[in-house]
Amino acid sequence: VCASRCQKFLISRVGEDWIFLILLGLLMALVSWVMDYAIAFCQEAQKWMYGGLDSNLLLQYIAWISYPVVLITFSAGFTQILAPQAVGSGIPEMKTILRGVVLKEYLTFKTFVAKVIGLTCALGSGMPLGKEGPFVHVASLCAALLSKFMAAVFGGIYKNELRNTEMLSAACAVGVGCCFAAPIGGVLFSIEVTSTFFAVRNYWRGFFAATFSAFIFRVLAVWNQEEETITALFKTRFRLDFPFDLQELPAFAILGIACGFGGALFVYLNRLIVECMRKQKTINKFLLRKRLVYPALVTLLISTLTFPPGFGQFMAGQLTQHESLVALFDNRTWCRQGVAEEFDYISHHHAWKHPQVNVFITLILFTVMKFWMSAVATTMPVPCGAFMPVFLIGAAFGRLVGEIMATMFPDGIHAAGSVYPIVPGGYAVVGAAALSGAVTHTVSTAVIVFELTGQISHILPVMIAVILANAVAQALQPSLYDSIIRIKKLPYLPELGMGHHEKYNIRVEDIMVRDVRYITLNSSYRDLQEMLMTGQLKTLALVESRDSMILLGSIERLQLQSLLSLQLSRQRRLEYLRQLAQDNGTHDHLPSLTSDSTPSSPCTHTHLNSSTNSSARQAVRFLVSTQQDSTEVEDCMTPSEVSPTLTKDLTYEMSFLWIQSLEVPVSSLMQITEWEEHQLDEPVDFKNCKIDPAPFQLVEQTSLHKTHTIFSLLGLDHAYVTSMGRLVGVVSLKELRKAIEGSVTVTGVKVRPPLASFRDSGNTTNVSEVTELHKLCIRHRGLSLPREPNPPNSPPAGLHKECQV
Amino acid sequence: VCASRCQKFLISRVGEDWIFLILLGLLMALVSWVMDYAIAFCQEAQKWMYGGLDSNLLLQYIAWISYPVVLITFSAGFTQILAPQAVGSGIPEMKTILRGVVLKEYLTFKTFVAKVIGLTCALGSGMPLGKEGPFVHVASLCAALLSKFMAAVFGGIYKNELRNTEMLSAACAVGVGCCFAAPIGGVLFSIEVTSTFFAVRNYWRGFFAATFSAFIFRVLAVWNQEEETITALFKTRFRLDFPFDLQELPAFAILGIACGFGGALFVYLNRLIVECMRKQKTINKFLLRKRLVYPALVTLLISTLTFPPGFGQFMAGQLTQHESLVALFDNRTWCRQGVAEEFDYISHHHAWKHPQVNVFITLILFTVMKFWMSAVATTMPVPCGAFMPVFLIGAAFGRLVGEIMATMFPDGIHAAGSVYPIVPGGYAVVGAAALSGAVTHTVSTAVIVFELTGQISHILPVMIAVILANAVAQALQPSLYDSIIRIKKLPYLPELGMGHHEKYNIRVEDIMVRDVRYITLNSSYRDLQEMLMTGQLKTLALVESRDSMILLGSIERLQLQSLLSLQLSRQRRLEYLRQLAQDNGTHDHLPSLTSDSTPSSPCTHTHLNSSTNSSARQAVRFLVSTQQDSTEVEDCMTPSEVSPTLTKDLTYEMSFLWIQSLEVPVSSLMQITEWEEHQLDEPVDFKNCKIDPAPFQLVEQTSLHKTHTIFSLLGLDHAYVTSMGRLVGVVSLKELRKAIEGSVTVTGVKVRPPLASFRDSGNTTNVSEVTELHKLCIRHRGLSLPREPNPPNSPPAGLHKECQV
Repeated sequence: VCASRCQKFLISRVGEDWIFLILLGLLMALVSWVMDYAIAFCQEAQKWMYGGLDSNLLLQYIAWISYPVVLITFSAGFTQILAPQAVGSGIPEMKTILRGVVLKEYLTFKTFVAKVIGLTCALGSGMPLGKEGPFVHVASLCAALLSKFMAAVFGGIYKNELRNTEMLSAACAVGVGCCFAAPIGGVLFSIEVTSTFFAVRNYWRGFFAATFSAFIFRVLAVWNQEEETITALFKTRFRLDFPFDLQELPAFAILGIACGFGGALFVYLNRLIVECMRKQKTINKFLLRKRLVYPALVTLLISTLTFPPGFGQFMAGQLTQHESLVALFDNRTWCRQGVAEEFDYISHHHAWKHPQVNVFITLILFTVMKFWMSAVATTMPVPCGAFMPVFLIGAAFGRLVGEIMATMFPDGIHAAGSVYPIVPGGYAVVGAAALSGAVTHTVSTAVIVFELTGQISHILPVMIAVILANAVAQALQPSLYDSIIRIKKLPYLPELGMGHHEKYNIRVEDIMVRDVRYITLNSSYRDLQEMLMTGQLKTLALVESRDSMILLGSIERLQLQSLLSLQLSRQRRLEYLRQLAQDNGTHDHLPSLTSDSTPSSPCTHTHLNSSTNSSARQAVRFLVSTQQDSTEVEDCMTPSEVSPTLTKDLTYEMSFLWIQSLEVPVSSLMQITEWEEHQLDEPVDFKNCKIDPAPFQLVEQTSLHKTHTIFSLLGLDHAYVTSMGRLVGVVSLKELRKAIEGSVTVTGVKVRPPLASFRDSGNTTNVSEVTELHKLCIRHRGLSLPREPNPPNSPPAGLHKECQV
Repeated sequence: VCASRCQKFLISRVGEDWIFLILLGLLMALVSWVMDYAIAFCQEAQKWMYGGLDSNLLLQYIAWISYPVVLITFSAGFTQILAPQAVGSGIPEMKTILRGVVLKEYLTFKTFVAKVIGLTCALGSGMPLGKEGPFVHVASLCAALLSKFMAAVFGGIYKNELRNTEMLSAACAVGVGCCFAAPIGGVLFSIEVTSTFFAVRNYWRGFFAATFSAFIFRVLAVWNQEEETITALFKTRFRLDFPFDLQELPAFAILGIACGFGGALFVYLNRLIVECMRKQKTINKFLLRKRLVYPALVTLLISTLTFPPGFGQFMAGQLTQHESLVALFDNRTWCRQGVAEEFDYISHHHAWKHPQVNVFITLILFTVMKFWMSAVATTMPVPCGAFMPVFLIGAAFGRLVGEIMATMFPDGIHAAGSVYPIVPGGYAVVGAAALSGAVTHTVSTAVIVFELTGQISHILPVMIAVILANAVAQALQPSLYDSIIRIKKLPYLPELGMGHHEKYNIRVEDIMVRDVRYITLNSSYRDLQEMLMTGQLKTLALVESRDSMILLGSIERLQLQSLLSLQLSRQRRLEYLRQLAQDNGTHDHLPSLTSDSTPSSPCTHTHLNSSTNSSARQAVRFLVSTQQDSTEVEDCMTPSEVSPTLTKDLTYEMSFLWIQSLEVPVSSLMQITEWEEHQLDEPVDFKNCKIDPAPFQLVEQTSLHKTHTIFSLLGLDHAYVTSMGRLVGVVSLKELRKAIEGSVTVTGVKVRPPLASFRDSGNTTNVSEVTELHKLCIRHRGLSLPREPNPPNSPPAGLHKECQV
C-alpha cells in the first residue's frame, strides 16, 4: 500500500517526465561510461600485446592485425545474427521514425543488445569508427524500452503516441550529450540532425536529460579517479587574452571552405563505395553469401596500413583516436625548430615526429589516408558512426593549415607592439568543427567543439568556418545521413534547398494524382473487393457519390478488409446454413455454433487476395469454416498455402468429393455460392467501420512550399486535394519528393517543372474553380438561377478583380 | 543594362537570402555599435557633469538627477508622439507576430526611428533598463523595412508571406546576437522566446546573420581602437585547470533554485505594479492625462536613491551596468582580508568597498534595491528591456553567494593535495544565467553567458542552475514576456504546461462552439445581410445546405460585404433607374453614368450596420448614390454620421422633401425600394467570391493536445469541427485558451475540466457518430438499406469492438 501511495505521490508531484528523463540520463551515462571503459580496455590490450612482441616483427604484425579483424568480424556476425537493424549509425533511421514512419523491429531489446555489444567491439578494434551516431540510436532504444517499462509500472500516459515522439527526441539529445559530455551541443545537434520542425516545448526535456546524463558521465570519471574534477573531454589551454588575430580570419575562412569541399567529397565517396559494391553483381553475390568477409578484408587492409613499424610510422598509426585528438589540439607549435625537444614529454606527441620525415608530410599523410579509410570503414556492416573519424580528420587538416601559417608568420601577424605567435591548435579546433559540420550539414558542431575543448575563445573563427563549410557542402551533396536515407531507401521528404525560389510557383495541381481511388456511400461489397484486389493503397477515400464527389473521409485498408470479411463471416455463413437446413428440414447434425461467438480469425480476409477459381474456393472455404474444428485448417490457409494446395489444383470434382465427405449435398453447394454472390452485391454497411472523418485536405492552388511545410509539420503520408469539398486528386510523399527533386539536380542547375509554365499565361485555374462552383449552385437550385445567365450590367471591373484574386 | 545584369547574376548565384542576411547583419551591427557609442557618451557626460561639481553637494545632486529625468522624459515623449508601438520590450509583440497575427503599425519606419532614438536616450540615462528586448524589435523592423526595399529593387520573392516570417525569425536572432556579440546564444534565445515550433531549415539563416552581425559589431570595436582583437564583451579570467569542485555543486544548485524563486517574484512584481496602477482609477486617470509624469517620477526616485554621496555609496550607485558587471565577474575574492589592498587598482572595484560597511552588506543592498528598481523601471512607457538588469541582479546575487562560500571555505573544499580556493566570480556567472533564465523561461541564457564571458569552464554548474531555476520559475509564474502578452491582451495561445496529463483527455467536442454561423449555397442576400449585421466573425462557414450541412469552405466577412454591395451597387441601381426611366419615358435628365465604371466606394457596405428606418435610408442612399456629384456625400456617410443626421432624424416626410428637391417623383421611390427588397431576396451568386475551399477541419474526437499542436504549428485562428464532412462546431483560439487555462491555475492545482468526466462513462460519442453516418446512408439510398434494420445475427462482439474503437 505504502509503495503504491509513494508511487502516486511521485507521479503527481515530480511528474513522470522528470522521473523518466532522470532514469534515461542515468542509464545512458552508465552505458556510455561502461562502454568507454570496455573500449579503452580493448585498446590497451591490443597495445600490450603489440608492445610485448617487439622482438619479432612478424609476430608483432600478426598481433596488430588479428586483434581488430577478430573484433570486427565478431561485431558484424553478432549483429547480423541477433538484430541486423543495429547495423550502421542509426541517425538516418531515427530521423525517419521521428518523421512519423514506423520502422519495424527498430526499437526492441534485441536491437539494443546487438547495438551496444557490436558497437563496443567495433570501437575497441581501433578502426576509424565513431560512437556518436549509434549512441543516438542506443539512447532512443533505451527511451523506448524505458517507456514500455514505465507504462507497465505507472500505466496511462506512456501509451500516448505523441508522447513517445517527444521522449524519443529528448533521447536523441541524451545520446549525443553523454557521448561527448556536451549537453548543449548534443541537444542542438540532435535537433538539427533528426527534426524538420522542432517543438520548443520539448527543448527543456532535451536539455535536462542531456545535462543530467553528461553530469553523471563525467562524475563517474571523477569517482573512478580518472579526473580531479569535472572538466571537458579534450581540454585545451589556448591563451585567453589574445586568442587570434583579426588578420587570421581569411585563413580560417579558407579552411572552412576547404572543409566544405572535403565534407561533400566524403559523403560522395561513402555513397560511391556502397553503390559500387551493389552494382558489381559478382561482388554483390559474393558478399551476400559471405557477409563477414567484407568487414574482415577492410579491417585487414586498414590495420596493415596503420601498422606502426610499417607505413603507420608516417601517419601516427599507433595512436588511438582519443590520443591523436589530444595531440592535435595541443597549444604548442610543432613545426618550430627551437621547441622540438619539448616534443618528448608525452609519448603521444612523439608519434607525430618522424626522424626522417617532416611534420607536414606526416599530417598530410594522416589526413589523406584517414579520409578514405574512414569512408570505407563506415560502410562495414557493424554498428558505427562517422562523426568522430571525420572530426579527427578535420582536426588534422586544421593543424596542418595552422602549422603552415605558423611557418609563414613565425612571430604572428599582429603589427603593433607585443608579439602573439599563431596557435596551430586553434586551427585544429576550427577544422574539426568545420569538417564534421560539412559532413552532417549542421552548425551545432561549433557548440560541440566548445564543450569538448572547454574553451570558447575561438568562437568567431569556428562559426565563420562552420557556416562557410555548410554553405559549400550543402550546395554540393546531401548530408551523410540523408545520403544513407537514400541509399537505404527509407521513406523521407527532402528539404527544400536554399534559394530555390521557383518552388513558390509550383502548385499542388501540378503534381497531384488525379486518378484517385475512392469508394462511395453506395458502393457494394463487390466494389470493395475489386478495390482491395487491384490497389495497394493503405487508405481509400470515401466520397458521397460518384456524381457529387464530396469527400466524407478516408478509410484504412484494414477496416475495409474486415468489413468485407464480416459480410462473409463464419457467423453469417452458419446462420445461412442453418436457415437452409431448416428450410430443407434436414442436416440437423450441423454443429450449432451460433451461440459460440468466436471472432472470425484475422486471416480470413487475406483470402481475398487470390481470385482464381473463386466459386470453388468459396464453397470449400464456406464449408471448412463451418466445421467445428476448422480453425486449424483456417489458420494455415494463408494465401500462399491455399493457392497451390486447395484452389488451383482442386477442380470442382475434387472439391465435390471432399465436400461429399463432409456430408453436404451438392445442391446446397450451389445455393451457398449463390448466397455469397448475393451478399457481395449488397451495399456496404459502414456502420461498423472506423472512418477518419477529416483526412488532410489541400486545395489545388496550395503552393509546393506550403505543402512541404504542412507535410513535414504534421508528418503526413498523403493528403487529398479538394475543390469546394469535391475530391479532385491526391498527393502523397512520393509525388512531393518527385516534385522537389525534379527541379533540384545535384549540380545545382535548376530545372523548371514542366507544368509551372501553364500558370503564367493567365488565371485559368480561378476560372475553372468558379465554373465548378457555379455548376454546384445550379445543381442545387435547379432552374432558379439561370434566370440571368449573362447579366447585362456586369459588376464594376475593379471590384470583380478584387473578388477573384 | 550592366547594373541590371549584375543584379540578376547576384540574385541567381548568391541568392537573395544571403544578400538580405548580410545587409541585415551589417545594418544591425552598425545600429548596435552607434547606439552603444551614444549611450557610453551620454553616461560619460553625466559622470563628467557630476564629477565637475564636486564642490557643492546640492548642485551635484541636481546634476545627478536632472540628467536622467530629462533623458527619460524626452524618450517617453518622443516615443509617445512618433510611434506609441515602440514602447516596451517588443519581444511579446514579435512572439505574437510570428504566431501569425498581424499587429498594425508595428513594423513601420516611424516605429523604427522612435525605437532607436527612444532606446538610446532611455539607456543613456543610466536607469536599470536593458537593450536586448528592444533590439529584437529593432532587428525585426530592420528586416521588415529591408524586405520592402528588396521587394522594390529585386521584386518577386520578397512579397511572399511565409518568406517574411522566415526572415523575421532570423532577424530576432540577429537582434540578440549583435546586442551581446553572442551569435549562438542569440539564435537559441530568440527561438526559445519567440517560437512555439521552429523550422530547422531556418536555423542556418539565424546563425549566419547573427554571426555576421556579431562579427561586424566586434570588428568595429577593434577598428575604433577599443579592443586589441575580437574577444568576449565581459571577458573573465577564471582558472582553467580546476574551475570548480564537485562538492560545490550543491551550492550552485541552491543558487539556481533561489534564482528560480527570484525570477518568479520579479515577474509577479512587474505585473503587480502595472495592474495596481490600472486599477487605481484616480492614478490611472492622472497618468493618462499626464503621460510624462510617471516616468519622470520613477526616474527621480531611482536616481535619488543611487546618488553616490547619499544612499548610493552603499550600493555602488556610481557604476553603470557595464562597469558593475565587469566588477562582479572579477576572478578575485573580495571578502578576504589579505588582498583588500588589491581593490584599488581599478576604480570600479573601489565602489564596492565602503570604509564602514562590509562587502556583504553592499552586495545585499545592491541586489535588493536593484531588484525592485528594475521591476519598476521596466514599467515606464519608454523602449526598454528587462534582460540586462535581471542579468546584473543575478550576477550580484551569485557574487554574494560566492563570497559567502569563500568565507566559509577559505582554502577551498577539495580534500586531497593541492589547494584550489573558491572563485566567487564563477558564482556570479552562474547567478546571472540562472536569474535571467528564470525570468524569461529560457535555457539558452547559459549559452549567452559563455559567449559574454568567453569562458565555458563553468558549463555544468551553469546548466544545473539554469535548469533548476527554470523548473521553479515555470511552476510559479509565466515568463516575463507571456506576462506582458497577457497584460497587453495580445492574441496568444498559452503553452501546455509540463506534466498536465489530463490534457490528453479533453477533446474538441468538449470545448467547441456548437452554434456555428454559416451560409448555405441557397442563402439569399437577405440572409447575408442579417448574418453580417448580427455577428462579428471574420470568416463564415459555407455549407451545402441546411439539411446536409456538408462544409464546402469558408468565406471572409469582407468578401461577403462586397458581394452584398455588389448586388446593390450604384452601377446596378443606375441600370435599374434607366430602365425605369425608359419604361416611364421620362427622366432623361438623369446622368448617364453607366459607362463611367467607378467602383463602388468601400464605405457603402458599412451602411448595413445601422438598420433603423431601412427603407427610407435605402431610398435616400439610392438617390444619393445615383447623383453624379454624390461621391462626396457618400464618403462622409460613415455609420456614425449617417445615423444621427440622416436616418434617425429624417422621417419619410423629410426625405421626400429632399428627394423632391432632386426632382425624382415619389412613385418611383416606392418602386426603387421594392426593387431593392427584391434584390435582397435573390439567392447569392458566389461566382465572384473568393472562397477558401479547405478551411482547417478537426474531428470531435481530436484531443486538446493535438489541437494545441496544430493551432500553434499552423498559426490558426479558428478551425471547423466536422463529422463525416458535416459541420458540427467551431473552435477558435478563445475556446482553446479557456480550455487550457481553465484547468491550469496559477497555484499549480489542477482542475478537471467539467466535461471530461462524461467520456469515462462509455463511448457515447462513437455511437452518435455511427448513427449520424447511418442516417446519411439511409438518406442516400432511400429505402434500399432498411431491409434488415435489426439483423438477427449481430457481428461477433470482438470484431465489432475493434471496428468501433
